[in-house]
Amino acid sequence: MVNVLMHGCNGRMGQMITGLVKEDPEITIAAGVDKFQEPQNPYPVFDSIGKCDVCADVVIDFSTAAALEEVLAYCVEKQVPAVLCSTGYSEEQLGKIAEASEKTAILKSANMSMGINLLLKLLKDAAKVLSPAGYDIELVERHHNQKLDAPSGTALALADSINDAMGGQYEYVYDRSQVRRKREKKEMGISAVRGGTIVGEHEVIFAGVDEVIEFKHTAFSRSVFGKGAVEAAKFLAGKPAGMYDMSDVIQF
Amino acid sequence: MVNVLMHGCNGRMGQMITGLVKEDPEITIAAGVDKFQEPQNPYPVFDSIGKCDVCADVVIDFSTAAALEEVLAYCVEKQVPAVLCSTGYSEEQLGKIAEASEKTAILKSANMSMGINLLLKLLKDAAKVLSPAGYDIELVERHHNQKLDAPSGTALALADSINDAMGGQYEYVYDRSQVRRKREKKEMGISAVRGGTIVGEHEVIFAGVDEVIEFKHTAFSRSVFGKGAVEAAKFLAGKPAGMYDMSDVIQF
Amino acid sequence: MVNVLMHGCNGRMGQMITGLVKEDPEITIAAGVDKFQEPQNPYPVFDSIGKCDVCADVVIDFSTAAALEEVLAYCVEKQVPAVLCSTGYSEEQLGKIAEASEKTAILKSANMSMGINLLLKLLKDAAKVLSPAGYDIELVERHHNQKLDAPSGTALALADSINDAMGGQYEYVYDRSQVRRKREKKEMGISAVRGGTIVGEHEVIFAGVDEVIEFKHTAFSRSVFGKGAVEAAKFLAGKPAGMYDMSDVIQF
Amino acid sequence: MVNVLMHGCNGRMGQMITGLVKEDPEITIAAGVDKFQEPQNPYPVFDSIGKCDVCADVVIDFSTAAALEEVLAYCVEKQVPAVLCSTGYSEEQLGKIAEASEKTAILKSANMSMGINLLLKLLKDAAKVLSPAGYDIELVERHHNQKLDAPSGTALALADSINDAMGGQYEYVYDRSQVRRKREKKEMGISAVRGGTIVGEHEVIFAGVDEVIEFKHTAFSRSVFGKGAVEAAKFLAGKPAGMYDMSDVIQF
Repeated sequence: MVNVLMHGCNGRMGQMITGLVKEDPEITIAAGVDKFQEPQNPYPVFDSIGKCDVCADVVIDFSTAAALEEVLAYCVEKQVPAVLCSTGYSEEQLGKIAEASEKTAILKSANMSMGINLLLKLLKDAAKVLSPAGYDIELVERHHNQKLDAPSGTALALADSINDAMGGQYEYVYDRSQVRRKREKKEMGISAVRGGTIVGEHEVIFAGVDEVIEFKHTAFSRSVFGKGAVEAAKFLAGKPAGMYDMSDVIQF
Repeated sequence: MVNVLMHGCNGRMGQMITGLVKEDPEITIAAGVDKFQEPQNPYPVFDSIGKCDVCADVVIDFSTAAALEEVLAYCVEKQVPAVLCSTGYSEEQLGKIAEASEKTAILKSANMSMGINLLLKLLKDAAKVLSPAGYDIELVERHHNQKLDAPSGTALALADSINDAMGGQYEYVYDRSQVRRKREKKEMGISAVRGGTIVGEHEVIFAGVDEVIEFKHTAFSRSVFGKGAVEAAKFLAGKPAGMYDMSDVIQF
Repeated sequence: MVNVLMHGCNGRMGQMITGLVKEDPEITIAAGVDKFQEPQNPYPVFDSIGKCDVCADVVIDFSTAAALEEVLAYCVEKQVPAVLCSTGYSEEQLGKIAEASEKTAILKSANMSMGINLLLKLLKDAAKVLSPAGYDIELVERHHNQKLDAPSGTALALADSINDAMGGQYEYVYDRSQVRRKREKKEMGISAVRGGTIVGEHEVIFAGVDEVIEFKHTAFSRSVFGKGAVEAAKFLAGKPAGMYDMSDVIQF
Repeated sequence: MVNVLMHGCNGRMGQMITGLVKEDPEITIAAGVDKFQEPQNPYPVFDSIGKCDVCADVVIDFSTAAALEEVLAYCVEKQVPAVLCSTGYSEEQLGKIAEASEKTAILKSANMSMGINLLLKLLKDAAKVLSPAGYDIELVERHHNQKLDAPSGTALALADSINDAMGGQYEYVYDRSQVRRKREKKEMGISAVRGGTIVGEHEVIFAGVDEVIEFKHTAFSRSVFGKGAVEAAKFLAGKPAGMYDMSDVIQF
């Protein structure tokens, strides 16, 4: 059983993780930290991590970048690994994270979703087999109508993962309506669909001779990030000092 | 039982229709016309329609534009309806078709597929309900890597069908990568995926609040056009003089 | 602008509708009724509908069956139409609803989702065209792993809608693993996928010669029912006395 | 450039491979063998493999089981690897293949499709990550209405591949309509859709908390087997004696 210290337990993601952990027999929350004392939780809540006197195997942090230094100090002193899920760290803070990782295990990832991180790996393997055999590669992503950027950062990460595996030979194409010509072999078309409240779908298509192989990821809510944090915590408990990311959690 | 005179019976589409008709108890081919005498068919084949002395309820023409005048002359004289599936008629020929349609039933359509013609109708109905209720509309089509144009003519026909039903309020958007902004209500994103030997897929997406409704058409071969011609022939047999198209065949 | 009296405004669905209405310029909530006074709302809230002295064009009820009589009395007296979304009415209550509908407009539906109700209509039209032309019809639905029944009630409603349109000729098939034989023409295969927290997907497949036409509905949350209630309220405001359901809201 | 001896060059699959090779700059057909001399090919055709005096790097056999002994004798004597794609070998013949594989490289696989063989591998990896993290696994396959068995052999092979990787913990479920209960963790639902002329689709679904990951394979024709044979030939040319299968061709 992995005992978690949930830092930022009363925020949206902290509460989501509180819910996820209830259904998982391998992990429990031993204590929480939050400056807000609402809502009630089935574990003790402290208003700062320094005051926490409960033993934990791993810290999950879903609070704010401002709390980083406290969290790192605690984890280094107590020799507890940390899963860092807050965002917006400064360059200086990133340096402190690297420093702390020499003394305790730290996991940080651009995207905490298990499914996306798994696809980032599997797509490399698929591309190594199918690209030399002449299969064309295309991506389609769908998001809600309030999203400002297109294509999504995740779509570009998936494309880059494939492109890295293939020596950077692909050129991304976002619009085919302006030219009249056949698809070139090293194009990778990336299409962005926008509508309604779609949380996020990513589809990678390998199209060959009379055959299509598709990899599709659908997120229905932000809880995919909470789920990823829980799996990361189970993985990181007991690990030696070092810098880890979600690709380490994804082990075949 | 509908008796067909298959004009152009030994071409690729004529042979496909010969095969389709075998499996359909409501229709049969009474005779064929083709200048090539190969392959063998289970019906008599004449080398010109003028020589055909077999009674038929309807002519299906899948030969060439050059044969139009002969076909029309026969159909007007014998008072037999004609399903015209050849392409590339001149302006003058289109005039002759209109003229002939005053004396016999003639059916001609830009796209002979039953499924696409059905969607052209149903999408109008869906748009009339969902567009005023705030659902966003998007299209994604997929075709093989040899296709020159993007988006496909069929994708544009589907978009136009929706747009016509909604008073032309939509603006088609083919690329979202160059601007950083939210989707506007009256955008209709149209994305073109290209790869492998994909024959043709068209997907229309209505995305609302936590809800997506999709209409998808997949063609696996050109036989969808043959199938449409067969259904058109069954529909047209016995109809009075006039100009028809596939939307007439699609009757609820 | 349609003014709504939101009955049950502080429940989950009442709050969801409060949120949906904020984004819709054609409708507003003039007042709410709820025995709970939390949370704060941008409209006055009364603890019973009898005490409400605000003029409204339509009542949306998402409270409990127990409140039916009060709601009906108010709507009949004030001559305000009612969208009834509570569930679990007794036979006796259904009789009272019918009675009240002689004096004011009442809308009640088994499923409040716009998308599902639209598909119930469009699938009839599609079946009338494609079934006689020999297309096979199949359904696949997906739901979360806690669902007790399979297939879902909505899947059966979609199947019944098609079957009713076709004179009841179809027989539903839930398992093909026990026999070794070709599909029969009048089978309609219905498959139930269960996994994770999938809210609800329904896919209807028409498969013909080298052609597939698919209709797919995906719900990401229960707010599809809230959205349907809002559209129903806009429709019902100003309508004469009578019994209505969601199929009336879905007008082409 | 790999030089192929195409055994069974004038059959359907031999002709398909003749077409595929034309578009591939890394491989060519040096000679063919077939008892039929039609149609014309851009390479010399012999009526038995014993008479062939053209040097080849690899033999692809798509003839019949009856020709096995001749093919093996030729390949052992000339020290040429063989891709065996005929089906229906007897136990005795399988013994002869094993024997020959001690002297030359032989590749034989239950399913020659690149895509299916790739998925067989990737699904193992995906299951090892997602199954312990609590994701549910389900399969849906679609085939034409003439298929006798359900689910397809390929669907079962995909399920078995996952199940083998997970220690055989899954139980396959083909029908959920007869019981009213929640999904059990170790169920793997397998659904078979039948309709029209669908060549073959296989979809594997991993459903977790608010997340779905899908792997989908679509075949549009039997040429996926031809394409697989071509890739197998490129792989096998120059390999040492031994028994190989398509999983060896799929190398990351």
